[in-house]
Amino acid sequence: MFSVTVRDHMLIAHSLRGEVFGPAQRLHGATYVVDATFRRATLDADGIVVDIGRATEVLRAVVGELSYRNLDDEADFAGTNTTTEVLAKVVADRLADALGEAARGLDGLVVTLRESHVAWASYERPL
Amino acid sequence: MFSVTVRDHMLIAHSLRGEVFGPAQRLHGATYVVDATFRRATLDADGIVVDIGRATEVLRAVVGELSYRNLDDEADFAGTNTTTEVLAKVVADRLADALGEAARGLDGLVVTLRESHVAWASYERPL
Amino acid sequence: MFSVTVRDHMLIAHSLRGEVFGPAQRLHGATYVVDATFRRATLDADGIVVDIGRATEVLRAVVGELSYRNLDDEADFAGTNTTTEVLAKVVADRLADALGEAARGLDGLVVTLRESHVAWASYERPL
Amino acid sequence: MFSVTVRDHMLIAHSLRGEVFGPAQRLHGATYVVDATFRRATLDADGIVVDIGRATEVLRAVVGELSYRNLDDEADFAGTNTTTEVLAKVVADRLADALGEAARGLDGLVVTLRESHVAWASYERPL
Amino acid sequence: MFSVTVRDHMLIAHSLRGEVFGPAQRLHGATYVVDATFRRATLDADGIVVDIGRATEVLRAVVGELSYRNLDDEADFAGTNTTTEVLAKVVADRLADALGEAARGLDGLVVTLRESHVAWASYERPL
Amino acid sequence: MFSVTVRDHMLIAHSLRGEVFGPAQRLHGATYVVDATFRRATLDADGIVVDIGRATEVLRAVVGELSYRNLDDEADFAGTNTTTEVLAKVVADRLADALGEAARGLDGLVVTLRESHVAWASYERPL
Repeated sequence: MFSVTVRDHMLIAHSLRGEVFGPAQRLHGATYVVDATFRRATLDADGIVVDIGRATEVLRAVVGELSYRNLDDEADFAGTNTTTEVLAKVVADRLADALGEAARGLDGLVVTLRESHVAWASYERPL
Repeated sequence: MFSVTVRDHMLIAHSLRGEVFGPAQRLHGATYVVDATFRRATLDADGIVVDIGRATEVLRAVVGELSYRNLDDEADFAGTNTTTEVLAKVVADRLADALGEAARGLDGLVVTLRESHVAWASYERPL
Repeated sequence: MFSVTVRDHMLIAHSLRGEVFGPAQRLHGATYVVDATFRRATLDADGIVVDIGRATEVLRAVVGELSYRNLDDEADFAGTNTTTEVLAKVVADRLADALGEAARGLDGLVVTLRESHVAWASYERPL
Repeated sequence: MFSVTVRDHMLIAHSLRGEVFGPAQRLHGATYVVDATFRRATLDADGIVVDIGRATEVLRAVVGELSYRNLDDEADFAGTNTTTEVLAKVVADRLADALGEAARGLDGLVVTLRESHVAWASYERPL
Repeated sequence: MFSVTVRDHMLIAHSLRGEVFGPAQRLHGATYVVDATFRRATLDADGIVVDIGRATEVLRAVVGELSYRNLDDEADFAGTNTTTEVLAKVVADRLADALGEAARGLDGLVVTLRESHVAWASYERPL
Repeated sequence: MFSVTVRDHMLIAHSLRGEVFGPAQRLHGATYVVDATFRRATLDADGIVVDIGRATEVLRAVVGELSYRNLDDEADFAGTNTTTEVLAKVVADRLADALGEAARGLDGLVVTLRESHVAWASYERPL
């Protein structure tokens, strides 16, 4: 199995609902350093997993739609707790949709959101 | 599949038994930067893999019991070669025991011990 | 010259005022990984720059007062553009105040705020 | 499942063939920071996955044969597009061959080539 | 003193002249992860060291002119040993020239080129 | 001003004397990731700060003399508190001595010992 990973980042504000979140129930924010990993059993005719230029553009577009925003005010997240885990899935699902033709032949996708030097979350899905 | 990782560290002394270890047969020590990854197929009602505050506390307690010690003198490790691999399993098994209710719904656990910028070891187990 | 650095982090929301900030004029947020470096020409009687336990506690207290907050709503920052540079100075000045006796013998302090894997800012001051 | 990883690096020149590579069709180069991960279900009698000294030597030998070379001029790569993905497989396969007796008991091998702070590729195979 | 750093990278081929370089006398290549640090005694009216958007664009332009090239074939480097140290100075000097108005008020510039996880070089100059 | 840095590491056991050290008064250990930075105002005839091969060998020799040892038992450290700060100076001074001819033209040396992902110490001296 092969994989290729590209990294970008986004800066968002949000608050979390639920006693388990303690002070993170207040409006605060985070930088998420986002790693998108594309998996593929065999390489294509060019010897690659994915056109890394295209994957980078798509990742930039997906994080660009989320960055510099207060997620509490976004209609897409009404009623959703925007935890790091949930956002990892959002980025992965939007990437899968946006890849279009570039996803051909890919077997899966992993998105990791690093929120600090001591905590991160991932979501893995098939393609 | 979702996962969440938290990081802590411990500083220990020990020696290793066996010719394969060369100079590491002498009493020496290491910093282990410890990454504990919790895996779960679906998120809980709060939209998380695990209460990260509770996971962090439990990890701190587990590495706290090992840190600032000479493992050669610890009764728990009598007759055990405390290699990085073995210690990764010790931390993972102790974490699994200590999580108690916080482990409900979790599918697995990976513990990685980074001993330098050029070497690390992991142990992965179900929960 | 000797120095010792300890690392912590904080998660905040804020917005920036000025056309130069582009989309960062909207309410968003950031994780700042905070490195506090203490400088000293000669070591003390214990062979250290600073009591690292005390320095770590003081840093934790300083970042704890800022973390999980919307800086736009904090009276301390009324009329202040809370850029990364400005926040580095705020953390450094608060650290200097909070160190009290622990600052005895120190020559200077550098605070670095890393806001992503590709951008960070520092402020350096004497003590 | 246990694993152990060791890190080394290599510096090579090459060019890539295919429109998808854009400016990377020109002769250029890269540093690959190479992580070799050895996987094993149970530890050996010494409590390890692999003799890490031997693994490190073998990895050094494998990357040493590639480093400080223009891969476009190497007979081994005639007709091969030396993408990061392809080179990850080359390193993994050569490691598997070179381990010899040291591979006994190992279940698999993952090789990751990091080409920058924002892009890397992996290849995973059984042993 | 304040500073702001932005990071980018470039991939180049080259060879070095002189026995001291050993195997690096052969044509090979490197990824340079490039950190550009801008220093300033006092912040401007917006509370910043430099317009980070403009600094990022200028850095991208400077590394873009060098990346995906064989420096041995570039007229700009005829007769020049393109060591990491020399290239750090080239990037710094070109940045200083390209900043134009954005350099107003800046006191200095440091450029660091990281060529692997175990080696890097810097050049520092006034502005 | 130019600089070049090379990285290596060492694994040691030790204990610290003084109430300020808390649990670190017990025998424990650490991995120190060691960065040695060589500074020079102008480059030599080859376009370098220092022969990086020679610097790497000298650093390896210096850390090799300390690694895989219990510093409490070493005659060189009798009566010395082997704090991270003190060890940074020991490494720097031994490097300066060992460089010999390779130090010609160098202006200074900085040694940084990273003891975990959240703490490190440096010592800077002229040459």
